[in-house]
Order: sequence, then C-alpha cells, then structure tokens
Amino acid sequence: MFENEPATTAILMVAAGLLLIFSVLFSRPSERIGIPVVLVFLLIGLLVGSRLPDHFVDFDLAFRIGTVGLVLILFDGGLNTPFRQIRQYLAPASVLATVTVIGTALIVALIARLLGLGWTEAFLLGAIVSSTDAAAVFSSLRGSGVQLRRRVGATLELESGLNDPVAVILTLTLTAQLVSGGPFNLAALAGDILLQLAIGLAVGYAVGWLGSHLLDRIRVPAAGLYPVLTLALALLAFGLPTLFMGSGFLAVYIAALMLGNQRLPYRSGILRVHDAMAWLAQITMFLILGLLAVPEMLASAGWKGLVLALGLALVARPVMVMLSLWPFGYKAKESGFVAWVGLRGAVPILLATFPVLAGVEGAIELFHLVFFVVVVNALIPGATIRWAVQWFQVEQAGRQRPSPVLEVNAIDSLPVQIISFRLDPAAMVTGNPAGALPLPAGADILLLVRGKEALPVRPETVLQADDHVHIMVRPEDKRAVELLFGLREED
Amino acid sequence: MFENEPATTAILMVAAGLLLIFSVLFSRPSERIGIPVVLVFLLIGLLVGSRLPDHFVDFDLAFRIGTVGLVLILFDGGLNTPFRQIRQYLAPASVLATVTVIGTALIVALIARLLGLGWTEAFLLGAIVSSTDAAAVFSSLRGSGVQLRRRVGATLELESGLNDPVAVILTLTLTAQLVSGGPFNLAALAGDILLQLAIGLAVGYAVGWLGSHLLDRIRVPAAGLYPVLTLALALLAFGLPTLFMGSGFLAVYIAALMLGNQRLPYRSGILRVHDAMAWLAQITMFLILGLLAVPEMLASAGWKGLVLALGLALVARPVMVMLSLWPFGYKAKESGFVAWVGLRGAVPILLATFPVLAGVEGAIELFHLVFFVVVVNALIPGATIRWAVQWFQVEQAGRQRPSPVLEVNAIDSLPVQIISFRLDPAAMVTGNPAGALPLPAGADILLLVRGKEALPVRPETVLQADDHVHIMVRPEDKRAVELLFGLREED
Repeated sequence: MFENEPATTAILMVAAGLLLIFSVLFSRPSERIGIPVVLVFLLIGLLVGSRLPDHFVDFDLAFRIGTVGLVLILFDGGLNTPFRQIRQYLAPASVLATVTVIGTALIVALIARLLGLGWTEAFLLGAIVSSTDAAAVFSSLRGSGVQLRRRVGATLELESGLNDPVAVILTLTLTAQLVSGGPFNLAALAGDILLQLAIGLAVGYAVGWLGSHLLDRIRVPAAGLYPVLTLALALLAFGLPTLFMGSGFLAVYIAALMLGNQRLPYRSGILRVHDAMAWLAQITMFLILGLLAVPEMLASAGWKGLVLALGLALVARPVMVMLSLWPFGYKAKESGFVAWVGLRGAVPILLATFPVLAGVEGAIELFHLVFFVVVVNALIPGATIRWAVQWFQVEQAGRQRPSPVLEVNAIDSLPVQIISFRLDPAAMVTGNPAGALPLPAGADILLLVRGKEALPVRPETVLQADDHVHIMVRPEDKRAVELLFGLREED
Repeated sequence: MFENEPATTAILMVAAGLLLIFSVLFSRPSERIGIPVVLVFLLIGLLVGSRLPDHFVDFDLAFRIGTVGLVLILFDGGLNTPFRQIRQYLAPASVLATVTVIGTALIVALIARLLGLGWTEAFLLGAIVSSTDAAAVFSSLRGSGVQLRRRVGATLELESGLNDPVAVILTLTLTAQLVSGGPFNLAALAGDILLQLAIGLAVGYAVGWLGSHLLDRIRVPAAGLYPVLTLALALLAFGLPTLFMGSGFLAVYIAALMLGNQRLPYRSGILRVHDAMAWLAQITMFLILGLLAVPEMLASAGWKGLVLALGLALVARPVMVMLSLWPFGYKAKESGFVAWVGLRGAVPILLATFPVLAGVEGAIELFHLVFFVVVVNALIPGATIRWAVQWFQVEQAGRQRPSPVLEVNAIDSLPVQIISFRLDPAAMVTGNPAGALPLPAGADILLLVRGKEALPVRPETVLQADDHVHIMVRPEDKRAVELLFGLREED
C-alpha cells in the first residue's frame, strides 16, 4: 500500500486530467461536423479501455458513478428549464414520456424477438433504449446555430427530462422479473410504474419546496456554500424517494424545476456551478461507459445491433411519437421532427449495466447491443439535425436571439432589471439620438457596445444597427421598452 | 449485489446530502461565535462517525479523497491570489514556508520527545502539524468584518499556500524513513526537499503556462466546459510532478497562481465553480477526517495533546515566525499577529493518515494526537482573532472596502472596465451634479444605486454620500477617476 500510494493517486489524477482535456479539446471539432460531443467522450473511453487490463472493468462502480452523474445532469436540466414559459407543453410531454416510452419499448422488443432474443431479454432491451437524451439534442442544435420553434423545442426538452425516470423504472422492474423468474404481470407492472412516479413527484415537490424556502432564508458566510447546498438538495431529492420505492430521477428533475423557477440567491453562481458539474458528469459517464465496452464484442453485435438501431429510429419512435402527439394538434412536420431527433444518450448505457450487476444471463451481450444502438441513434440524428430542421420546417421564424456582450447581476435584489438588446436595422429606435427616445420614467440606457468599443451614452448619441444597448428598466416597463428596441438578447 | 444496489447508492447519497446541508446550516452561527466553520464539519463527522460500524474507517479512501480535496483547495487559493499586487511579499512568505515550517517541526519534535515519544515519531508529529491553513484564517477574518494591513494579510496568504508542500514533503520523507528504518541523514533530507520543491515549481510553471495558452486559444461549444478544463489542469498539475518525485501540491498552487493572474475566458464562471468545489472539498475533507477519529482515543490523547498544542501555539510558531520575519523589517506587532493566527486546518489531519497507511507503529495514536493539536490550534486563534487584530494593531487604516451591489462582467473582452465606488462624504464628487464632474473622455457614470433604488444618472443628478456609483472607464484613466471618487468597492 504505502509503496504505491502517492503514485497510484497521482496516476489516476493524471489519467483523469488527460482524458478530460482531450474530451474538451475534441468537443469543438466534433460539433462542427455534427457528431454529438458526448460520442467523442464515449469513443475516447472505448479506445483507452481496449488497452486496459481486465480488472478496470468495474460495472458496479460504473453504475454508481453513472447514477450520480445522471442526477447531476437531470438537476441541471431542471434548473435551466423555464417552466413558466413552457408549462402549456406539459401534457404532450407527459404522454411522450409515458406512452411513447412504453410503446417504443414494446416495438423494439418485438423486433428483438424477431431477431431471436427471448421474450424477457427482448423486453429488457426495449426498456433500456426507450428514453431520449435532451443534452445530446440541444448540444447538437446549439452547434448548428438554429433556434427551434418554441412548441417543438419545449416539447423535446420537457420530454427528455421526464422520460428517463420511466425508462429506469421499466428496466429495474423487468430486471427484477428476470432474476426472480416469476410470472409476468402487466397490471402489476403498470401499477408499480404509476406508484413510483407518484412518489417521485411528491418527494421531488417536497424537496423543491423545502429547498427554495431554505435558500430564501439562510444566510451563509461565503457565496460558494450556496452551490454546496443545492448539490445536497439534488442528492437528497434522488436518495429519499429511491429508499421509499419512488422514482428518484423524476424527483430530482421536479425539485430542480421548482428551484430553477424561483428567485435564488447567488443565482448565476449556482447555475454555473451546476452547469459545469453536469458537463463533468456527462464526460465522466461517457468515458466510463466507453471503458466498459469491448471492441470485439461491439463488432459481434454487428448486424443485429444495426437492425435494432434502425428499427428504433425509423419505426418504433416515429410510430409512437405520431400517435402520442396527434391528439394535441401538432402538425405532421412538427411530430416528424420530434420523432427524428430522438437521440439516445448515456441513460441506456447506464441502464444496460444493471442487468450485468444483477447477474442476468447474456447481460454482457445485451450491454454491447445497447451500446451499438445508442451510437447509431446518436450519429444519425446528430449528423442530420441541420437538414432535419429545414426539411421539417421547424426553425423559429425571425432572427435568433443574439448573445450579450456584458453580463450585469444585481447582488442584492434591486427593484430594477437590466436588459440588453442588439439593435435591428428595423427597430424603432435605430437611427435616433438617445435623448429623443420616449423611455419610461426610471428607465435609462446605461451603456452601448459598438463593435469592440464601449461608448458612454449622451443625449446626442445616435443609436446604430447592431449596437448592443444595456438598459435599466423597472419590471413593469419591460414590455414598453421591448416594443421600442426589438428583440432582447439572451439572459 | 442486485438486491442492495439502488438502495445502497441511495443511502450514501441521502447521508452525503444531509451532512452537507447540516454543515452549511451551522456555518453561519459558528462564524458568529468565532469558531472556524471547518471545525463544525469536523465535529459533525466526529459525532456521526462514533455511531458507525468499524468498517467505515477507511484510511486509504480518506487519504485519496483528502489529496484530491487539498488539490482543489490549493488550486482555488492560487486562482484568487492577486499575485501582481503581493509579489513583494514573496521573499518573507517563502522563508516562512521553509524555515518556519522546518523550525516549527523541530521545536514541536523536541516537546514531543520530552513527553516521551521516540525521536522519529516526535519528528513525524512535528512535520505533520507544521503548516498553516489560509482558508481557516481568512474565513475567521471575513466573519469578523475587519481588513488586515496589506503586508500582514498578503504574507499570511502566500505563506499558507506555500507551506503545505513543505510539510507534505517532510512528512512523507520521515514516514519512508520510519518504514525503511535506515539511518537518518539530514543533508540528504535537505537535498530531497529542495529537489522536490524545484521540480514542483518547474512543473507547476509549465502547466500554468501551457494552460493559459490553451485557455486563450481554445473555443469550446459550451461555457460550462471551461471549468472542466481548469479542473483537468489542476489534476495534471498535481499528478505529473508527483510521478517524477516533485511536489505536486506546490505545482498546483503555482499553476493556479499563473492562471488566476492571466486573462481567462469566462473568468467569473471559472472562479465560482472552483470556489464551490473548494468549499465542497473543505466540507468533505473535514467530515471524513472527523469520521476517522474515535472519541475515546481523543480523550486519551488528553494532556499530552494539550501540551503539544500549546507548545506549538505559544512557543514553536512565535519563535520561528519572529526569527523568520525579523530580517524583512516587519514590526514586532506584525510578526506577533502572524505568529498568533497560525491556524491549523485539514492538512495535518490528512498527513496524519499517511503513517497509518504506511503501517507505522503507533500511527493511530499519532493520528488522534494530531487531531487534538489541530482542534486546539483552530479554536484558540479562531476565537481570539478579533481581539488579536486590535491588540497587534494590524487593521487596515481607513474605511473598509465596501461590497458592491451590482456585478458587471464583460463576456467578450472590451477595452473599458467597469469599476464601482461607494461615495464617502469627503469624496471630491459628493454633493456635485453628475454633469459638472471633470470625467476623462470615454468615462461615464452608468448607474447609481441609492439605498434600495437604482437611479438613472442625468447631468443634473446630484451625487450623495453612500451612493454606489458604477463607472465605465478606460484602464489608463482609472487612477484619475479614483482620485475623484475615492475608495473603490471590492472587485
């Protein structure tokens, strides 16, 4: 022990450091050619893993790290979901998260059965690959620089936050079934799913409610302790319902939704820390899942994997999405786009470790089959996403929100907000001197950024197209100012 | 395995979540009564640990987590050290980090020998408790609301970043000595220390240099990836020199110093993430170290521990600090204050796990002795720090820098800075209308916060005492604006 100790820890840290650096370095080029960033991490893990001795294959550790990672990712997703703005899409997203997930699992199971798998293994496979990954969808979209029509974007975002818990419940229950070998009871399964979702929802709501009151009341000696507190809330939101047969992942997402839509102290700090932790979790999960896979076994998953992957992408998901969204009045092209970009991410591979841990026969083959399905279902939609946006005509009309050049945060809460605009040539104020604008009382242009220069604003300063203007305004006057200045920059 | 799995992970997460929440909740009350926050975490760990079954006592895991934690803490410390402003204190701080550490270790060893320990155990104990903890000092100071004279504050800050590596080297070398049982060679020890420091310095410099070029060049698809990159740099900065017989902890601090004093993209995000990670590391380290201790063994460390603790605080450190700072022209009261607030933190307890891992005889007793010494040497200076500031007259003359109410960050780099002032009644501008101020060209008052109100600034707006004003200014005009407005708020 002693002979090796500082060296072993040092080797682990160097390895982790190098893997992280390579992953970040390759994230940009991968995005340019339309491959989801996360696949790069998976590939690096696979390449490194195939050169490691066997004892690094630790499915137990992978499951534990993957669980924590998924908690961090879902929590970050919930924090950043502007629930108030998209709650009208909750109904279709919930149907996608339940009906579509279960239906997709059934159709994939049918295909797997036709390929020669036993019924329960087939159902297990279907359950494992049944949920989509928002991070993959949105990182692909961000790279392509387009903005989706709100209905489509919001539906995809809510869906992928809500459907992971259902896939997890399906997989765990089916695995337990396989291990116990008892008779298959569909009614019991359905009841179980509903119960777990209900408990998860209740506990998530409770943790979110308590957490936002706690954050509102508590004063900590250093701002860096706030993110520690929100991290603790995320761990509790997962752990508590899991202990009481509820869905921990649903609870995490719900708790984060509530916290993120509340006034948080040190908000931008909390969001940034969770953003970084979610990225770290993404990279770590995909690296580790890549480490677990054996290239030879992936190759032998070959044509079966390909048939399953294409069956999922071209049959199972499209059929179920069209059926699920049809009652909500989505246009065919909108449903088509939602169906097409059902990218799979880390969740299926994480779920595929579970049968391995449970000692299900053939679980290692299943793991590699799932790996194959996930990679194909990230590559195809990922590489075609720009084309799909045009083909299905789901791009947001009008210009994209420009990004701001300054960020202004009030540390105490002030009764004004500072909002920023990038002036459109057609905006009402463009071409006019600042002193001549009919600004509401209490509103004021603080600062103007033109090209690489920041200019003071005097009454005689003429506003030009493409200027970034930062305006202080009372919340009640925001609408009036938006009418004058046009499209706001991203917050 | 399968029967337990989701539950085991869930229990661990609930436990971690609750411990973190309690630690954060108690951090504020503890600060008010002058107990360093970190001791609260230690105490919680101790209370919980004494109720756990034996197999939770895992010194190996504690060492590994402690190492990563210390890396995160030192990296954060380096990032936040304004090196350019305090580099004139590098010489005295370096002498404190080497001469004072070694001398303190020797004097403590002498006391321990008098108390009946063997020579090598005595030296080991001295080495383990020889370094101070900046985080403890500064969190105590922040709670008391005073600002130290710059020379004193900067010396303490640099000292505590630089002295941990020396204590680590001393401890590891002495432990190796104890295990191998060879003859004790002082010259070889000194040479070894210098070599390790030199390698650590070189590798830290190299990682810092490469890292800042990398951060400057690379464009990542999501800002959340920048902190992942800096985290990777921290891991590399520790791991690489450690593999080549260098001081990893020194390298981490040096690399962070270089990065923090560079223009970083997404700077405030990176700093916040590392700040939160350092707090998380602090809490985790102290909790775990508390878990390792056994209350009965602490009690039996009793009077020996007390004599050692007081010997360290009242003899060893004061003597060595006075000697070390004397050539640099520090006043007696300044040296006295530096000597008095030599708070001990997590490093000694982490170092005390090392002999346990190495299987040194009596290492468990040593661990508890160290635990005792650390607690006393955190409690006494921590509780008396306000009194010490007055007694030694080291408070910064003049008013304390007020804290700002708005935070403005440029996302791209702009050729102007935004600085803020809280107006003193005696400031030149107070009582004058904004339009009458002789501001340099290109400078402009953006915003004025008066009480709870943010006001637009018109030429006729009269500036009043206690107004917060935010001013845009070119870097070259900063001095002129400071002459007009007085004391700047904290950045």
